[in-house]
Amino acid sequence: MTRDELISEIYQKRSCLSIGLDTDIEKIPSFLKEKYEDPVFEFNKRIIDATHDLCVSYKINTAFYESLGPSGWTSLQKTRNYIPENILTIADAKRGDIGNTSQMYARTFFHTYDFDAVTVAPYMGEDSVVPFLEFDGKWVILLGLTSNKGSADFQNIQDSAGTKLYERVIDTAGNWAGPDQLMYVVGATHPVQLKSIRQQVPKHFLLIPGVGAQGGSISEVMKAAHIAGECGLLINSSRGIIYAGEGHDFVEEVRQAAKNNQIQMDQYLS
Amino acid sequence: MTRDELISEIYQKRSCLSIGLDTDIEKIPSFLKEKYEDPVFEFNKRIIDATHDLCVSYKINTAFYESLGPSGWTSLQKTRNYIPENILTIADAKRGDIGNTSQMYARTFFHTYDFDAVTVAPYMGEDSVVPFLEFDGKWVILLGLTSNKGSADFQNIQDSAGTKLYERVIDTAGNWAGPDQLMYVVGATHPVQLKSIRQQVPKHFLLIPGVGAQGGSISEVMKAAHIAGECGLLINSSRGIIYAGEGHDFVEEVRQAAKNNQIQMDQYLS
Repeated sequence: MTRDELISEIYQKRSCLSIGLDTDIEKIPSFLKEKYEDPVFEFNKRIIDATHDLCVSYKINTAFYESLGPSGWTSLQKTRNYIPENILTIADAKRGDIGNTSQMYARTFFHTYDFDAVTVAPYMGEDSVVPFLEFDGKWVILLGLTSNKGSADFQNIQDSAGTKLYERVIDTAGNWAGPDQLMYVVGATHPVQLKSIRQQVPKHFLLIPGVGAQGGSISEVMKAAHIAGECGLLINSSRGIIYAGEGHDFVEEVRQAAKNNQIQMDQYLS
Repeated sequence: MTRDELISEIYQKRSCLSIGLDTDIEKIPSFLKEKYEDPVFEFNKRIIDATHDLCVSYKINTAFYESLGPSGWTSLQKTRNYIPENILTIADAKRGDIGNTSQMYARTFFHTYDFDAVTVAPYMGEDSVVPFLEFDGKWVILLGLTSNKGSADFQNIQDSAGTKLYERVIDTAGNWAGPDQLMYVVGATHPVQLKSIRQQVPKHFLLIPGVGAQGGSISEVMKAAHIAGECGLLINSSRGIIYAGEGHDFVEEVRQAAKNNQIQMDQYLS
């Protein structure tokens, strides 16, 4: 999916919502576990059916599938393949390694599973990220300033010129690819820094985790960093949406939770 | 495996060799692909049979298995289970995410697949690493100064006091766990920095990639950073060993390559 296509989807749906499929087998309704061989996929299928007109992306958090052993990857693959064509698919994998290994990770997510985008960790530098950028028509979403408390431990370290590590990461990666291929992860839990990051990268899409369970606010994020006419944001909620309901009709509450998110975005996307 | 048990294995075998099972389906002997349903496992099995008395660890690089789809994880699991009890098993996965996700990754490698150790990326800070440390009797191997060229991009950034990022990572992580639970990755391609890192962490084991295909030297590493009587090093070679041979008797050359590595370690471990 190109940048223009993504923007077009966002304004058609008046939504820049990404829904995180952090599907935990221990948290899904018990009737799915009793009735189906692959309850993780059955859960995701129902979430996708109930929300695909309200979001522009699904972000699959690989950890939750990996923890189930090889069969978890089958659930992941079936989920990926069930997502409609016009929706951006993100593998939230946070991979990154030396060149020949990053090539394998890129092949995994872009070729084997055919995701549109993958999240990548920057610590190992250019040759750990570039192999992901060599896939045409695919996106790299590089960690910038993450939503968690621990982001302060290293991402805020300042060099002698006062530049913080996350600013340096964003700046340096700008030499490796442009806003048609590269996005950054910036947590909704840092609204002030989000504003200055938007000044630093006026054209890049930002993937924003940290609303919902982690406490960030959609309207603060939109105010701080949306680009008029291009949006430039994918705001992700995982637990706040997918676990909104319980019981047989859980999808009704899931849809309502997604709708509540979309409504907060609507006024900025007319 | 405890620190004492690892040290004991090292001095019994006079080896601190870790063999990296970066098994690429496109590089293994063709007869294995023609004859077996799971050629990746069959290749690894022969490598393990031929080398287990010469090494103290096998490091499984998850990327190579992931790229094969769900069945790759079955090959990984079979390989892990085939490794003898007295050998340290490392999942070279370089994971790291917000707390609830790191918990899932920790569960994946320590519980689902029962590895002794997992490599973890530090960028996201304390709450991304601590969930791995909550598993009793398991090891976290945190990225410090990696072996690749891109390590210079961010790991060498200096703060206003002149401390480099990798030094800060090593220092900070020292508050999270001790040398009985935490190791650091330091590339053999940085012998000078290796010496100063050893002064910084006189008791921690270091996992050293970058000998063999990447050009680092075993004897330089041993001179710079081995601890008398405790060794404190796991020196890893992947491609330099596992692809040493071709054809039906490839394991003979594989064993010779492993032996050549072990001989260079021997004089420091008597």
